[in-house]
Amino acid sequence: MRTLLIGNSRTEDMVGDLSRLSARAREAAAHTAHRLLWWAREGDILVLPTPPDDAFADYVAGLTGTPRTSVTVRVPAPGALGEHLLTPDRLADTDLERALAEDLGTPPPGGTPGLRVLPVYADQAVAGLAHRLGAARALPGHAFHAQGGSALVNSKAAFRAVAAGAGVPTAPGTVVTDPGEAARAIGGLLGAGHCAMLKREFSGGGLGNEVLAPVPGVEPAGAPRAVVLPDDTAVRAYVAERWPWLTEGGRHRLVVERYYTGAVPVYAEFDLTDTAVDLTGTGEMLMDPVVVGEIVPASATLPADAVAELVAVGRRLCEAYRALGYRGTISADAYRTPEGEIRFCEANGRITGSTHLHTVMAARLVGPALRPRRVLLGGECPAPSFRAAVSALAAADLDFDPVAGAGVVLVNGSAPGAGTVTYCAVADDAAGVRELRHTLEAALAKAQG
Amino acid sequence: MRTLLIGNSRTEDMVGDLSRLSARAREAAAHTAHRLLWWAREGDILVLPTPPDDAFADYVAGLTGTPRTSVTVRVPAPGALGEHLLTPDRLADTDLERALAEDLGTPPPGGTPGLRVLPVYADQAVAGLAHRLGAARALPGHAFHAQGGSALVNSKAAFRAVAAGAGVPTAPGTVVTDPGEAARAIGGLLGAGHCAMLKREFSGGGLGNEVLAPVPGVEPAGAPRAVVLPDDTAVRAYVAERWPWLTEGGRHRLVVERYYTGAVPVYAEFDLTDTAVDLTGTGEMLMDPVVVGEIVPASATLPADAVAELVAVGRRLCEAYRALGYRGTISADAYRTPEGEIRFCEANGRITGSTHLHTVMAARLVGPALRPRRVLLGGECPAPSFRAAVSALAAADLDFDPVAGAGVVLVNGSAPGAGTVTYCAVADDAAGVRELRHTLEAALAKAQG
Repeated sequence: MRTLLIGNSRTEDMVGDLSRLSARAREAAAHTAHRLLWWAREGDILVLPTPPDDAFADYVAGLTGTPRTSVTVRVPAPGALGEHLLTPDRLADTDLERALAEDLGTPPPGGTPGLRVLPVYADQAVAGLAHRLGAARALPGHAFHAQGGSALVNSKAAFRAVAAGAGVPTAPGTVVTDPGEAARAIGGLLGAGHCAMLKREFSGGGLGNEVLAPVPGVEPAGAPRAVVLPDDTAVRAYVAERWPWLTEGGRHRLVVERYYTGAVPVYAEFDLTDTAVDLTGTGEMLMDPVVVGEIVPASATLPADAVAELVAVGRRLCEAYRALGYRGTISADAYRTPEGEIRFCEANGRITGSTHLHTVMAARLVGPALRPRRVLLGGECPAPSFRAAVSALAAADLDFDPVAGAGVVLVNGSAPGAGTVTYCAVADDAAGVRELRHTLEAALAKAQG
Repeated sequence: MRTLLIGNSRTEDMVGDLSRLSARAREAAAHTAHRLLWWAREGDILVLPTPPDDAFADYVAGLTGTPRTSVTVRVPAPGALGEHLLTPDRLADTDLERALAEDLGTPPPGGTPGLRVLPVYADQAVAGLAHRLGAARALPGHAFHAQGGSALVNSKAAFRAVAAGAGVPTAPGTVVTDPGEAARAIGGLLGAGHCAMLKREFSGGGLGNEVLAPVPGVEPAGAPRAVVLPDDTAVRAYVAERWPWLTEGGRHRLVVERYYTGAVPVYAEFDLTDTAVDLTGTGEMLMDPVVVGEIVPASATLPADAVAELVAVGRRLCEAYRALGYRGTISADAYRTPEGEIRFCEANGRITGSTHLHTVMAARLVGPALRPRRVLLGGECPAPSFRAAVSALAAADLDFDPVAGAGVVLVNGSAPGAGTVTYCAVADDAAGVRELRHTLEAALAKAQG
C-alpha cells in the first residue's frame, strides 16, 4: 500500500475564514502539517505547505525506520494566502499535479491499485486533485467528499441534528439562525441558573466557542473565555454585539447549549470504512481553558463503564455519518458530567490533533504488543528550540526507547517564534505518564536556561 | 388517530428569506396552507395562517365527508411578517398554545396516545410547539427536527453529498462557496458545450434556479430563465453580479451542475417512518418553464423500467436520510434524460405541492379500489373565482364523482387577485386526463367570459 498524504491542516470547514488567521496561526498550521511525516512509509508521497526542517525529518525517520530518501515531499508554490496553508488554490496547482502524476506513474484503467489518498481533511480540493490524478478510488468516500460532504460532518449545527436522530445524548440546546432566537435560547438557560456554551458552526480547538455565565467565577473549559451576563438585557446586548463573530457575518448557524461546569472532556476516535466503523482510540482532554493536552486511552482515567458507553454511543453516531457516505476518521467528542453522564458535543471528520497518538505513537512506535500496557500523554511545553529539546531529552535520558515502548517523543519541529515543542510521553500508567511529564518539563525548563 | 395539522406552507429552508416574499407570494402561501383541510378528519385540529373561505371549506367537507363542525381551526394573531405566513413568531404565540392545549386536553405522562402532529415543514418552530404542548412524541422524528434537521434534508447542497454517498446518480457538478469556484465550475460546463443549472441552497418550485447556456435558444425547464454566457468573461461578470442573489448575501452554498435539455422531470415521494421508507406516489412534472402541473402516477407516462429505477433509487436516497434521523415526507426529485437515464436532482423533506395528489386525491377521494386504474393531472387554470369555477364545473358536468372516481376537484380556494384555481383532474389514463384538462380549461374560459 502506497499513500499520498496531503497536509491541508487548516480548511474553512475546520476553522472558518482562513484569511483571518494570524501569521502565527498560519505558521502553526504548516508545522501541524509536517506531523504527517509520522505516517510515511517507504514509497509514500507527502504534499506539504512548506518543507519540514531537516532536523525534525531526520528525527522522525530515526524513530519510524522509514528512510527520508524513500519518501517524496512535494511543496506547491505559495498561494493567495501565502506559503503556510495548503489552500485549495495550491492543491489545484498544475505544476504540483504534473509532479504527482510523475511520482505515481500512469494509472491503469480503474485507478492505481494499492494506492491510498490520506488528507488531513477530505474536502473538494483534495477530491478534485485525486480525480485529476486518476486516483479518485484511492480516496475513501470520494464521491461524498467531492460534493462537500465533509462540511456536513464537521458542522457543529448539523451534529446536533444527526446526534438527535441517532439517539446520541447531547447537552440540552438548539441551533439558531437569528439573533432573536439566540437571545431567547441563551436567556432560557441563564435564567434557569445554568451556563451556556455557544459554538460557531465551523471552528476547531474550542476557539469558536464562548461560555456564558449568569454569575462570575465560572471556569470556561473548551472555550477561550467566559462572559458574565447577569440578565436578559445583558444577553441581548451581547448577542447584538457578538452576532457577526458568532456567525461569521451571518454565513453560518450558531449552536446554543447548556454548559456543564466541572465536566471532563473525552472522545472516541473511529475510522469509517465501506464495511465498518473501527475504533482507533480514546482519550481524555486536558483543558486550560482550551485543549492543552490529553491522556490516552480514556480507560487510564475513566471508569470502565464510562469508556464502554463512550465507545458504544460514539460508534452509533459514526454509523449515522457512515450511512450518509462519509469515509475516514471521525472523532466523536463528548464529556462526562460530574453526575457521571456521557454527553456528546461535536464530531470532527478529519485527522485530528489526537489521531497521531493512536495511529502512530501507540500503534506504530509502541506497537501492538505493548500498547495495552501503556498510557500516552500528549502536550506542549516551552523549549528554546527543537534541537535543544532533543538534546535535553537525551541528556535527561527521557527520549523514547522503542524496545521498552516508553519515553518522550517530540511530535513536531519547533515553530519559529512559538517557543514550544509538542510531545507525546509514554509510560506504564496515568501516574507514571504524569510524572514523566513533570520530569520532561523540568528538563526543558533547564534547557530554556 | 387525531391529527394536529400545521400549515407552515413557507419557511426559510423552503424559499429563503421570508421577508423578501412579495405580497402576492404571501397570499399564495396562505391559500396553500388551506389545502391542509383535505387531510382533516373528525376531531382534527388545524393551525392555519388565515381562516379558509367558507365556500372552500364547505366544498372540501362535501367531498371528504368530514363535517366542518368536527374540525377545529386555530389562527394565531398576525406576526412580524403579517397574516399570510405561519411564521415561527406566530407558532410561539402563547394564546395559540393555550387554545391548542385546551383543544388537546391534559396530556397523560408520556404524551397523548393516538395524536399525530403533521406540519407542512417540520422545523424548530413546530418541534418547539409540539414540545410545549406535551406532544413531542406525536411529531415523528421530533428530536431530529428540534435541532434543525430538516434544513439538512432540504439543502440542495447537502443533497449532492448525501446522494453521492448513497450512490444515487446526479448530474455532474459541484457545490461551491466562493465566486471564483463558481465561475470555474460554470466555465468548465459551458466550455464543454453543456448548459449549467445553478441552484440556491434553499428554495422551492425552481424559483431559486437559473439555467446558463453557451448559446441562445435553450429552453429553461425547472428555472424561470436561461442566461446566455458566450465566454469566460461573461461567466465571471455574471457570477460577480449575481453572487449575492445566488447565495442570499453569502449566507448559503451554491450548486452548479450540468443541465440536460429535453429531460423529463419526475419524482417519487416517500413517507419515512421509524421502521420503513414507504412509497406514497410518483409523478411526472409539467414545466413551462417552472412547474405548472403534473401527471400521477409516473407509470402513466414513463416506461416501467424507468419507474422501477426511479422508485428503487429514490428509496435508497431516502434510506440515507432515514439513517440520519429524518421522519416524514420526502420527495426524491429526478429527471429522465433524452438518453433514458434517471438522474436525481434534489430532495424535499416536507409536504410538497404534490403530496395532496397521493395522500388525499388518490388515496382518499379515488380510494384504494379504483386508484390503480386512475391517472391524475394536477394544474392551475384561469378562473374568475372559486365559486364561479365550482358552478362552471357543475354546469359542464365535470365535477368529481366519488362513485366513478373521476372528474375534477378544485384543490384550493381562489387567492384574491390571483385569478386562477388549482385543480386535480382524474380520468382513466393519460390521454383521458389530458382531454379532461382541455374540457375543463374550455369550461373555465367560458365562465371567465
